[in-house]
Amino acid sequence: MLNLDFHPSGRHFLQIPGPSPVPDRILRAMSLPTIDHRGPEFGALGRELLDKVKRVFKTENPVIIYPASGTGAWEAALSNTLSPGDQVLMFETGHFATLWHKMALRLQLEPEFIGLPGYEGWRHGVQAEMIEARLKEDRDHRIKAVCVVHNETSTGVTSDIAAVRRAIDAAGHPALLLVDTISGLASADYRHDDWGVDVTISGSQKGLMLPPGISFNAVSDKAIEASRHNAMPKSFWAWDEILEANQNGYWPYTPSTNLLYGLNESLDMLLEEGLEHVLARHRRWAAGVRTAVQAWGLEIQCQDPAVYSPVLTGVVMPEGTDADAVRKIIYERFDLSLGTGLGKAKGKMFRIGHLGDCNDLTLIATLGGCEAGMKLAGMELAGSGVCAALEYFATHPLDGGH
Amino acid sequence: MLNLDFHPSGRHFLQIPGPSPVPDRILRAMSLPTIDHRGPEFGALGRELLDKVKRVFKTENPVIIYPASGTGAWEAALSNTLSPGDQVLMFETGHFATLWHKMALRLQLEPEFIGLPGYEGWRHGVQAEMIEARLKEDRDHRIKAVCVVHNETSTGVTSDIAAVRRAIDAAGHPALLLVDTISGLASADYRHDDWGVDVTISGSQKGLMLPPGISFNAVSDKAIEASRHNAMPKSFWAWDEILEANQNGYWPYTPSTNLLYGLNESLDMLLEEGLEHVLARHRRWAAGVRTAVQAWGLEIQCQDPAVYSPVLTGVVMPEGTDADAVRKIIYERFDLSLGTGLGKAKGKMFRIGHLGDCNDLTLIATLGGCEAGMKLAGMELAGSGVCAALEYFATHPLDGGH
Amino acid sequence: MLNLDFHPSGRHFLQIPGPSPVPDRILRAMSLPTIDHRGPEFGALGRELLDKVKRVFKTENPVIIYPASGTGAWEAALSNTLSPGDQVLMFETGHFATLWHKMALRLQLEPEFIGLPGYEGWRHGVQAEMIEARLKEDRDHRIKAVCVVHNETSTGVTSDIAAVRRAIDAAGHPALLLVDTISGLASADYRHDDWGVDVTISGSQKGLMLPPGISFNAVSDKAIEASRHNAMPKSFWAWDEILEANQNGYWPYTPSTNLLYGLNESLDMLLEEGLEHVLARHRRWAAGVRTAVQAWGLEIQCQDPAVYSPVLTGVVMPEGTDADAVRKIIYERFDLSLGTGLGKAKGKMFRIGHLGDCNDLTLIATLGGCEAGMKLAGMELAGSGVCAALEYFATHPLDGGH
Amino acid sequence: MLNLDFHPSGRHFLQIPGPSPVPDRILRAMSLPTIDHRGPEFGALGRELLDKVKRVFKTENPVIIYPASGTGAWEAALSNTLSPGDQVLMFETGHFATLWHKMALRLQLEPEFIGLPGYEGWRHGVQAEMIEARLKEDRDHRIKAVCVVHNETSTGVTSDIAAVRRAIDAAGHPALLLVDTISGLASADYRHDDWGVDVTISGSQKGLMLPPGISFNAVSDKAIEASRHNAMPKSFWAWDEILEANQNGYWPYTPSTNLLYGLNESLDMLLEEGLEHVLARHRRWAAGVRTAVQAWGLEIQCQDPAVYSPVLTGVVMPEGTDADAVRKIIYERFDLSLGTGLGKAKGKMFRIGHLGDCNDLTLIATLGGCEAGMKLAGMELAGSGVCAALEYFATHPLDGGH
Repeated sequence: MLNLDFHPSGRHFLQIPGPSPVPDRILRAMSLPTIDHRGPEFGALGRELLDKVKRVFKTENPVIIYPASGTGAWEAALSNTLSPGDQVLMFETGHFATLWHKMALRLQLEPEFIGLPGYEGWRHGVQAEMIEARLKEDRDHRIKAVCVVHNETSTGVTSDIAAVRRAIDAAGHPALLLVDTISGLASADYRHDDWGVDVTISGSQKGLMLPPGISFNAVSDKAIEASRHNAMPKSFWAWDEILEANQNGYWPYTPSTNLLYGLNESLDMLLEEGLEHVLARHRRWAAGVRTAVQAWGLEIQCQDPAVYSPVLTGVVMPEGTDADAVRKIIYERFDLSLGTGLGKAKGKMFRIGHLGDCNDLTLIATLGGCEAGMKLAGMELAGSGVCAALEYFATHPLDGGH
Repeated sequence: MLNLDFHPSGRHFLQIPGPSPVPDRILRAMSLPTIDHRGPEFGALGRELLDKVKRVFKTENPVIIYPASGTGAWEAALSNTLSPGDQVLMFETGHFATLWHKMALRLQLEPEFIGLPGYEGWRHGVQAEMIEARLKEDRDHRIKAVCVVHNETSTGVTSDIAAVRRAIDAAGHPALLLVDTISGLASADYRHDDWGVDVTISGSQKGLMLPPGISFNAVSDKAIEASRHNAMPKSFWAWDEILEANQNGYWPYTPSTNLLYGLNESLDMLLEEGLEHVLARHRRWAAGVRTAVQAWGLEIQCQDPAVYSPVLTGVVMPEGTDADAVRKIIYERFDLSLGTGLGKAKGKMFRIGHLGDCNDLTLIATLGGCEAGMKLAGMELAGSGVCAALEYFATHPLDGGH
Repeated sequence: MLNLDFHPSGRHFLQIPGPSPVPDRILRAMSLPTIDHRGPEFGALGRELLDKVKRVFKTENPVIIYPASGTGAWEAALSNTLSPGDQVLMFETGHFATLWHKMALRLQLEPEFIGLPGYEGWRHGVQAEMIEARLKEDRDHRIKAVCVVHNETSTGVTSDIAAVRRAIDAAGHPALLLVDTISGLASADYRHDDWGVDVTISGSQKGLMLPPGISFNAVSDKAIEASRHNAMPKSFWAWDEILEANQNGYWPYTPSTNLLYGLNESLDMLLEEGLEHVLARHRRWAAGVRTAVQAWGLEIQCQDPAVYSPVLTGVVMPEGTDADAVRKIIYERFDLSLGTGLGKAKGKMFRIGHLGDCNDLTLIATLGGCEAGMKLAGMELAGSGVCAALEYFATHPLDGGH
Repeated sequence: MLNLDFHPSGRHFLQIPGPSPVPDRILRAMSLPTIDHRGPEFGALGRELLDKVKRVFKTENPVIIYPASGTGAWEAALSNTLSPGDQVLMFETGHFATLWHKMALRLQLEPEFIGLPGYEGWRHGVQAEMIEARLKEDRDHRIKAVCVVHNETSTGVTSDIAAVRRAIDAAGHPALLLVDTISGLASADYRHDDWGVDVTISGSQKGLMLPPGISFNAVSDKAIEASRHNAMPKSFWAWDEILEANQNGYWPYTPSTNLLYGLNESLDMLLEEGLEHVLARHRRWAAGVRTAVQAWGLEIQCQDPAVYSPVLTGVVMPEGTDADAVRKIIYERFDLSLGTGLGKAKGKMFRIGHLGDCNDLTLIATLGGCEAGMKLAGMELAGSGVCAALEYFATHPLDGGH
């Protein structure tokens, strides 16, 4: 049997912004025996799943489930709606926006990557007015899609998607709106239908609290229509056959049976608790964590309080401190994993994930590990973040108690 | 918690030719906590896995692991080596060959689908001489790849891949050889390097005894070279970034962490037992099952004893008997899942999977369920297959006892 | 991690008459985190459990649950109701009756062990008329208890407990009736209240489908009254403190928390299916297995068809055949565990368990292993038991199908 | 499936002094299929277990394993070595000493219960000189055994057993020394042989990190000799038959198979880490927790620093504060279970368990929950215990890092 941990005792604290800790309830569901994916029980499960999952995306439209990790769902969104040579407008909010841009290039699209100058884009959300301005310039509608990241996992900034929709509409532009909420779904407020999103991309290993391995495309009628005519070679990702097989709760090829068991359990957990309660829980945790960062006298990566992420918080290190050296101390001494700075943020900051199967004390432990580790790394802190967060949690009960 | 079974007690017999039953040892490994896929333990696991997996493909070359189910690995093989408009030669051995052909069309390739006339191709293996003849005609080498299925899951026929390699060589043709052994790997003899295969496609849910969700491309140098110049839009499936990240045991995007735990355990199980022992076990089971079919007086789907599959056996129903009606009785009365007839074989036959985590008595139970179910469906059987198989197993010990 | 099996693949067939195979659903329940046995959730669980368990014993009276295996519950029954020097009447039905008798001696009781002469008692059930006769002789009521085994696990004989009650009543004797149904509960018909039993002893690892480790005393008012005055030194087993703490769902000392999770799941499974259905399932399996034994031309250990056990069947070997040598072949070649002959039956017979989490095909596999193993051991069989049982199961559906 | 937690997300913090959290590695081991307890694999497991377990007790003598919870092992120790009417000297260190005394009465022994006057005994360890004095008075050696608790779970005091041994020897008294280290084993230093203990009693659900359900008697030759002649009625607990069956790795009655799997895993974990490292880990945690209590300005239940428990710490509430009301707030708001005040300590204090499968951050979380909860209960604290403990852990690394 694998030994995945060099610490002699105790449970590892996995506080990266995904994969998030998988609850035992989900692990247990995933350990049910694999069944015939063409048998009657499977069809019943499939139909139930496909129905319940819509509620988490807040859509009445179909949600396609891929037996592939999140990056695949990006490719699915692009390859079903666009054709080689198509222009797409993408907004640089951070590392994941950058990777998606790179994928568009590989898929022979012509992405235009806009954003705030310098490193600013990595500390703010999508600037809808820049999109509006650019679309207005595009009088002959050569831009076929606008691609934005809802919750930028690399920075802890949650962009205002409704504003992007309004910008597109204000420009009177027919471009499709493609949104990545891989790390936002089921942790940050997200509304596929209300916000007029054409394709929403998500994954399993964040707010859904599953291991990585399945991913999603929630689609609009307009997106489906586009998929009927686009010229990108596609087969595995093609929506048409999946949507057809999904009518009966099946898939055109072997689905990830055991991860679907987990998804079913995850959806039950989220819907039993109530999605709004889940979101409130995340907002409160994020506020507590930011209270700690402020008590330490450190900067939060996101510089616009209106778009602080409820899912993760980027903690900026002072000039001259290597965030990864701090993370290493914290990992080795306190058995705590934090997110590394990615791309342009490398070494500048670390990321605290506060999503999914956590509670107040998990986060107190996490902040404790950060605080002690930063001190051990020689950093001077303005005050105790742990104490500040503890005070915050104590004085801000969620629904009268927990 | 899901209830996946309407039978009040006892364990379901999943004897379809994949997904195969997942051993508890693997389910336990998969229940380990998800870790940071960018942390040091993950890198160590990744390196070990990527090394061990080669031994199962019998290759010294890299094996790429996708966080996607088997159909994705087909697409990966095609999209990394071919360009839209390329001709490919495919051989119709059954339903899965047909689906792969359909995928080639969707990917804007120009597949040519050859095979024996009528239904014959579904009862025999690849005819290497037909491939040789066709390649010889292709004097200007417009055919870029030959695609064949090693173990046709829909029929129980295991084609001779070494013969296909010899045919290509005899034709002096530079086409790549792409082979699907999704259901053959780790159950039927397979040799990526010795047989000169350029891309081997496989999946997790058959001989590797994992749930569905990860899949493989074993590659040759020639295939890698082709992937550097081909024009198919590709990103998720692209080998280059994966091979680069794999150097350190990582992946360019989130891998299926928990399925990789399972894969690690599966590889340990197979290598501890010894791959040749695993193959001998499957050959012996298949012989026992065929003994039963012959005792019943029924036809085996595969009409060429040289290519009987060690993984599954197709049992042909007499004229006028609907195989799916028989399967339904067996399922409802005996809690046993058998494989349905797919495509052209619909209703004509059912398939018994005898692979992976089975033993003699599992198969006796399976044959018992088949025998009783066929009788309940009104079929006249020539004799008792269960007794014949029991006799076969008793008198043909594997390595002196078990 | 332990490796408990030297067979390279497939699941072991555990067909001993207990411990019986533990369903995954129960193993999953047992893997829930251990909680504070003094906390509020525990109390709620305890109250629910103590209530549900009564339904399986068919009693309105309390059922005491011990964090100890079944033998402990024997001692509990004796030590709560009897005093050193007390006479008890015990009936020799087999090995477990013998062990209970031995325990009575160790507890300084004065047991009288009656039964049929020679080996006969091991092939028949309790002879109620012998008990009646003996009690009638006991005019001054020195005998304080009658102790009988309901389902003799060593022989496959299920005695008629109602008849024993009638015998005691017919003798007008005040002796308590203590009954061991460790292997009968939830597999064979059992009625604590209707049959006027004073203490029923049972355990977890048989019809309840749990691992060994907890055990039971169902008690009558008369037994509780006796426990208030008896003089046996006792503390761990003492009913009084347990009954008091049970009022609130707790125990006076640490209970077996995780086994209680399993018990809760077991009770849900049994009650969801319906206890009568469970019993019918066992009766049908036993009939099928006996059909096989008869087809082999072998004797069943139990010589009185009225008391054939629905839980297990003892298969008598012909003169000169060592049952344990046969069992060894079956174990090594077919990964199948059968029960050994115990005590006086050593070497003469083996026992097939057909209880709990089984189904028709599990038993077909089991009978297949027996049949092939007996042949390998050189035995001549009259016919195929597997075929006979398969025919029986096919033609005797349980509730119209499964 | 049971729902054991009313908190919507996150893992419960079980910081009572036992049952302690069960590591997943052990839960996985316990989920292995139950096997035949009379088969060859079981015997091999039994022999290995019985050998390894001695190393944790630090004895060369046999250790008896009961399929019963810890209280049973107390009874086993008494009933194997003593006879009704025997005098035993017991020392009142707290609630568990009191319960053991009560058991001795129920077993018809004549226990004498000595200790410091008033509540003092509950805040100090065993006073060996009082034992010595009492034994010296007992010139005709009517006292047959001295019974003491090593680690008093109700108070957090770890008595000096070597001193008790010296006291008995100094008195030249032949009394047996019986020691309860149910909550001390594998967390606090314990040496059965070196300290001359005759019977050591322990259980599974503390330092061994198992669920409750199995318990132990480590024995001396002198104790075994006593068991051959004592007159207590006993059967289930009798050492003789167990020791005999243990020779081959078996038990005379059905053992707790799956808990034994867990025990095997536990022993591997402890011995792989090294027992001295395990003990050092516990001492360090205890020191960190006491640092917190002192920072809060609260009293520690144990008033003698020489015998502070490494396993748990009793936190005394100020006059007028109901400890259970504080615990309830902490439980409901922070999903954290603490130990209640037992017996004479009811309402006066709560107990923090810091044993087994913990790490620094688990304890920081625990102290955070205590700190915030006490404030919410209106208590005035002198300072932040969380910060003090964090500082302690950061500046006191265990073996250079973790």
